Amino acid sequence: MKDDIFDFCRNMSDEQDARARQMLERAAAKWPLRVLHVLSEANGPLRFSRVLERVEDISQKVLTQTLRTLESDGLVIRTLYPQVPPRVEYELTPLGRELLTQVVSLWRWIVVHLNEFDADKPAASR
Amino acid sequence: MKDDIFDFCRNMSDEQDARARQMLERAAAKWPLRVLHVLSEANGPLRFSRVLERVEDISQKVLTQTLRTLESDGLVIRTLYPQVPPRVEYELTPLGRELLTQVVSLWRWIVVHLNEFDADKPAASR
Repeated sequence: MKDDIFDFCRNMSDEQDARARQMLERAAAKWPLRVLHVLSEANGPLRFSRVLERVEDISQKVLTQTLRTLESDGLVIRTLYPQVPPRVEYELTPLGRELLTQVVSLWRWIVVHLNEFDADKPAASR
Repeated sequence: MKDDIFDFCRNMSDEQDARARQMLERAAAKWPLRVLHVLSEANGPLRFSRVLERVEDISQKVLTQTLRTLESDGLVIRTLYPQVPPRVEYELTPLGRELLTQVVSLWRWIVVHLNEFDADKPAASR
C-alpha cells in the first residue's frame, strides 16, 4: 500500500489542516467528550446545572469553558430563556451528535484492543 | 435513542477506562499521529534519522519520546542491529497500522465537515 492514506487532505490549506487537527484533539479530549456524551444521553435540552450534576468531577468553570467551545464549534446549541432567574439550556446539534458517533467508533475499537496495547511491551522496558 | 452509546464499556474497571482514554488522547495527538503516518507511508522499517527527516518540524528529543511511547503501546517495533555504529529501525506493528486506519477515518469525517464547525457559530460570538 503505497497510496497516501491522507491523500484526501492534499488540497487543504495550512489553516484548514490546523483547524481539523484542533477538532480532532478536542473531540478526543476528556471533558468535551464527556459533555457531549451527557447531552447525547439526555436526548434533549439540559440546563447547565443538570449537565454539571451529570458530568462527574467537572468544575463549574471547566464546564462553562467546555460548553462555550462546543457551542463555538457548532456542536452544541445554547438557548437562553429570559425569565427570572434566566434559564439556559444546552442541546447537541446534529453535527455534535454525529461527531460523537465517530469518536465512539474509535473509542470502541480501542476498548476492544485494550489488552493488545500492553501485550507487545517487552518485559524489560521502563 | 435512549440506549447508552457507551454501554460496551460498562464492565470496564476505572483503570481500563483510564488506559482507553489515554490511548484515545495519544492517538489524536499531533506527534504520535504524524510518526505513525510516516511509518505507514514507508511501509517497512525506517531508521531513526529517516523518521526525523520525514516528520516535519519534530525535534530529536520529541521524536525519541514519541517513538518510545508508541513502542511501549505496542504500535511500533524497534529493532536494534548491533553493528558499529549501531543501527536502530522502527516499523509499524499490525496494531499500529490498524489504529492509524481508525484515526484516519475520524480525521476524514472531520475534514469533510470542516466548514460546518464554524457555520453554526453566531456572528457576534468571540
